Amino acid sequence: MAKPNLQIALDHSDLPSALKDVKNVGDIVDILEVGTILVLQEGDQAIKCVRAMYPEKTIVADTKCADAGTTVAGNVAKAGADWMTVICAATIPTMKAAAKEVKDLQVELYGEWTYDQAQEWLDAGIDQAIYHQSRDALFAGETWGEKDLTKVKKLIDMGFRVSVTGGLDVDTLKLFEGIPVYTFITGRGITAAENPAKAAQAFQDELIRLWGE
Amino acid sequence: MAKPNLQIALDHSDLPSALKDVKNVGDIVDILEVGTILVLQEGDQAIKCVRAMYPEKTIVADTKCADAGTTVAGNVAKAGADWMTVICAATIPTMKAAAKEVKDLQVELYGEWTYDQAQEWLDAGIDQAIYHQSRDALFAGETWGEKDLTKVKKLIDMGFRVSVTGGLDVDTLKLFEGIPVYTFITGRGITAAENPAKAAQAFQDELIRLWGE
Repeated sequence: MAKPNLQIALDHSDLPSALKDVKNVGDIVDILEVGTILVLQEGDQAIKCVRAMYPEKTIVADTKCADAGTTVAGNVAKAGADWMTVICAATIPTMKAAAKEVKDLQVELYGEWTYDQAQEWLDAGIDQAIYHQSRDALFAGETWGEKDLTKVKKLIDMGFRVSVTGGLDVDTLKLFEGIPVYTFITGRGITAAENPAKAAQAFQDELIRLWGE
Repeated sequence: MAKPNLQIALDHSDLPSALKDVKNVGDIVDILEVGTILVLQEGDQAIKCVRAMYPEKTIVADTKCADAGTTVAGNVAKAGADWMTVICAATIPTMKAAAKEVKDLQVELYGEWTYDQAQEWLDAGIDQAIYHQSRDALFAGETWGEKDLTKVKKLIDMGFRVSVTGGLDVDTLKLFEGIPVYTFITGRGITAAENPAKAAQAFQDELIRLWGE
C-alpha cells in the first residue's frame, strides 16, 4: 500500500509566523497547504511566498471555494497554487469551472453531503475529497470513530483519493491502518510541537511503519 | 413595507479597482461587502481599507466561513467588519463560534440545504440568510424564477432576514415586489455600469418605488 502523503496546513493568522513554521518543516512534508485562515488574512501574497520558498512542492490553496470557480481558481493558480479546495455545497458548474484552472481540485466535506453528490463529483472528473473532523466539532468534544472510518473507506471504494484531517497526531494514524488514505493533513499536530521538524519526521516515520515506503 | 437595503459586493481581484468602485458608490448604497474573491486576494487589508474609507457604514466580510469560526470571525471583526458570512455546510458549532465574534452572521445558501437545517440556524440565534443564484449557475443559463421566490418567501416566513443576490439588475427587482426582502446584493449590476453612481441611485430609486421609503 502506498505511503500516504503528509500535508502541513498553514492556518496562521499572519504571514511571518506561517513562513517561520513552513521553513522548519517544508522539506520534510510532501504537500504544503496555504490554509483558509491564512489566505483570508494575507491574500494571494501567502501563496506567492510559499511558492517562492518551495518551487518543487505541491501547494494547495484551501479556499473552500463556493462560487465564482473560474476567478478564484484562476487567481490562486496565478499565485502559484497547484491544487485548490472547493466546499461540498458548491454547485457542479462551480466545481467544473474551478477544475479547469488548477492542476487538481479537492472537495471539502462539511455538513450534510450525500454519496449521490459524491458520485456527481466523480462524474464531473473530480476525484479528490477531504474528510474532516471540523475544528469546532473537535472543540465540542467529538473524536475520530468507526463511523468516520466507514465513510472514508466508502469514499475510497467509490474511487476518491481521500485526505483526512482534524485533530490528528502521530498516535491517531494507526486508527487508519490498512486503509489506503491518500493524504493526512495536520497543522498544530506539527507546528505546535516543541520541535516541529522532529514532529513532522515522526509523522513520516509512522506513515512508513504503517503503510510502507 | 420597509425599503430593502442595497448592498454592493466588491468582488474584485485587486484592491485598487475595488477601492475605485467603492469610492464612486459607497455613499449611495447601504451596505458594503468585501467579497470572497477580494478577501482571498488581498486579505484583511481590503476590509481595513474599506472600513477606513467608510467608518459609519455596515461592512460585510464575505468569507463563506466553513470552519474555525472563532478565528475567522475574530480576524475579520478586528479588521473592521460588522457582519460575516458562513457557508450553509458549516456545522452549528462553527456558526455559533463565529456568531460570538461579529455583530451579525449571515448563512450563505448554496447547494442542497434543507429547511430543517435552516430551523437549526434560527434555533442557534442566526436569522440572516443569503439566497443566491450562483454566478456559475447564471453562466450556465439559469435565471430567477417562481421556485426561487417561493424559497425566499418561505425563509422570510420562518423568521429570516433574507438577502437576495445573483445577476440582479434594476429590472429584476420588480420580480420581488410585495416580498419583504431584507437586502438586495449586486456587484457588476452597479460596478460594470457606464456610470456606477447613477446605477446605484437607480437601484435605490426602484427600491423606494416598489417598497416605499
